[in-house]
Amino acid sequence: MRTQVGIIGAGPAGLILAQLLHQQGIDSVILERKSRNNIEGTVKAGILEQTTIDILREIGVGDRMNREGHFHDGNYFQFNGERRRIDLKKYSGGKQVVVYPQHEVIIDLVNARYANGKDIIFDVEDVTLHDIDTDKPKIKYRKNGMDEELICDFIAGCDGFHGPSRQAIPDNIRKEHLHMYKDGWLGILSDSAPAADELVYANHERGFALLSTRTPILQRHYLQVDANDDIANWSDDRIWTELNERTKTHDGWQIPDGPINSKGIIQMRSFICETMQYGRLFIAGDAAHTVPPTGAKGLNLAATDVKVMARGMAEFYQTGSNDLLDRYSEICLRRVWKAERFSSFMTKLLHTNPNLDSFERGIQLADLDYYTSYEAGLTMIAENYVGLPIEWEKAGDTLRLVK
Amino acid sequence: MRTQVGIIGAGPAGLILAQLLHQQGIDSVILERKSRNNIEGTVKAGILEQTTIDILREIGVGDRMNREGHFHDGNYFQFNGERRRIDLKKYSGGKQVVVYPQHEVIIDLVNARYANGKDIIFDVEDVTLHDIDTDKPKIKYRKNGMDEELICDFIAGCDGFHGPSRQAIPDNIRKEHLHMYKDGWLGILSDSAPAADELVYANHERGFALLSTRTPILQRHYLQVDANDDIANWSDDRIWTELNERTKTHDGWQIPDGPINSKGIIQMRSFICETMQYGRLFIAGDAAHTVPPTGAKGLNLAATDVKVMARGMAEFYQTGSNDLLDRYSEICLRRVWKAERFSSFMTKLLHTNPNLDSFERGIQLADLDYYTSYEAGLTMIAENYVGLPIEWEKAGDTLRLVK
Repeated sequence: MRTQVGIIGAGPAGLILAQLLHQQGIDSVILERKSRNNIEGTVKAGILEQTTIDILREIGVGDRMNREGHFHDGNYFQFNGERRRIDLKKYSGGKQVVVYPQHEVIIDLVNARYANGKDIIFDVEDVTLHDIDTDKPKIKYRKNGMDEELICDFIAGCDGFHGPSRQAIPDNIRKEHLHMYKDGWLGILSDSAPAADELVYANHERGFALLSTRTPILQRHYLQVDANDDIANWSDDRIWTELNERTKTHDGWQIPDGPINSKGIIQMRSFICETMQYGRLFIAGDAAHTVPPTGAKGLNLAATDVKVMARGMAEFYQTGSNDLLDRYSEICLRRVWKAERFSSFMTKLLHTNPNLDSFERGIQLADLDYYTSYEAGLTMIAENYVGLPIEWEKAGDTLRLVK
Repeated sequence: MRTQVGIIGAGPAGLILAQLLHQQGIDSVILERKSRNNIEGTVKAGILEQTTIDILREIGVGDRMNREGHFHDGNYFQFNGERRRIDLKKYSGGKQVVVYPQHEVIIDLVNARYANGKDIIFDVEDVTLHDIDTDKPKIKYRKNGMDEELICDFIAGCDGFHGPSRQAIPDNIRKEHLHMYKDGWLGILSDSAPAADELVYANHERGFALLSTRTPILQRHYLQVDANDDIANWSDDRIWTELNERTKTHDGWQIPDGPINSKGIIQMRSFICETMQYGRLFIAGDAAHTVPPTGAKGLNLAATDVKVMARGMAEFYQTGSNDLLDRYSEICLRRVWKAERFSSFMTKLLHTNPNLDSFERGIQLADLDYYTSYEAGLTMIAENYVGLPIEWEKAGDTLRLVK
């Protein structure tokens, strides 16, 4: 089989890329390890920043998000029992975020793909990459027990942290930055009503808590726990008690509860792969970088990566120039590092660390106070939370961003 | 002897306080352990923020600073060999800093004190505080071998980190927050020309460096070194070589050098005492809190502390009300914690830490990039560097600061 762009992975990165390429008249084939039911049914991230909202609208899959998504103009930071609102819209020049679950985005993107008359090859196995330093890179895989081969102009590695694409970049070219946190997040999905009108990020002596949401009847809440803790130690009762304690603002504060239909503990990890390209291979999203969930940046970074990639490929097919594609990694990483910076900042700002001395704990509270009350602090949080612009120009030119 | 306010210490805090009180017709006596020559001759801090400039002008000792001080509208942050200017004036709404050495401020303040027809009692020994929880607190001391006693309405403890005032607050009332840094600063005074038109804060793999100045013919430069390093390991040649290396922007970069007439290594320390008052005792400046020098906040915090103290005392003598004095510690600490926050932020942002993993080092560079290129980042640095406003209202009201 032959295509222009072979896309490995039908997550947000791969599916958005396919749609962006289709708009430019560029053909692609998508290979996905899992089934359609699986990718359309797994509840994952849920906060789309303005940058992602814009991309989804641009590729014509924003209608249901516009109708059914819950647009938020702000969020809450809570500390010392006081809840302060960050007016994201005001401090970002009118931008928003939307609560619209990742699997709904996937459903819309898969539908759009089929509406284009294009296919997605699900349930593929044993994906391997070949000849990526030539102009005819190949993807080999198995499907229904048969060996298959896809010959491409370019390969887009959108296959997540554990996928084969990143590993195809030679070791001596690839510099990986990994940072593990000692904290984990205990996350639940609960059939219950929202706990607040906007997300609540709570710093508390007992640990961080996040009250989030997916739909009006499905809530996603989190508790900071030890990364090595066992979920068996956490009964539903204990989880609700702890959530209530950490997000309490007044006597009688009570989060609407309901059946917990999923719970688990995830390890917090930051990861960046430099470079994000080699020969005709370009990697994007979790294949290239992961963030702790504190800044809600994972899915959103995937969307902006492929926006850069698609523009580079369009330039190549329209003009024959590699200029933009050659700068793919540089352009993406400039923004990725800033998003990792914000995720790391949010994690340190909000999580409790028993190893802090009393001075450092005081500084954490002073940080919370400054960033939630001074205009520069509020703007820093708001503009990063709704998504920084893509910096297309050279690093030294970032100063041009200043008005 | 009898006075309204007994001031222990003729540093910036004590001398500015005396002048502020004099303007309100409040009598004070200043006791100082050292000689006049000593306090007028020791080169210490040198950067006065806008808040301090305003206070010195308000108390009528700004003339020589206005004439001889070097007003700076910005400073430089350097990393990856690139020097970026922070336009302090632009991003702080027109505020500045002035390079005007602390001992010159002291000279002006001592002159103003004598011009008021008031005295300073130098060379006192064995200062002790008594009856501070009564309305007739006493200071006992020795002068020329004689035991003396000063009976006051209030005692102002402006006697530095090692002075007796803070220790007079009972242990069970006092909560001290101390944080030691593993880094030290090697500081030099050199008879040479300025290295740049504004201060240069340089982040470098080999360690932080700061190019500062005191006068057109006296420079103050610093190198990050291990706090336990021995100054004997640092020849003048080695110091100049290291300063040049860390602040290099291009081939041939050369700091104007000259004789080094003073060098030493200081330990970096953050310290805050909660509370800053007990009974009729109020402590200010280094007696209550110290900062690492990275944010240039030490002298400036002393000036704003005594501004709050003087207003509280004026209210007391004019109306008999303790309202403001009762909130002295609360008002000061709100701003002190934010200045400590900024000093800690600057220290972490600029110093090299060999224990950082490659991800954390990348985040440090991303922080430097963000804070020196995005308007919110530039504003954060600028408004803190020139000095945040005093927050007279309650903590919950800090939100009112937002436009």
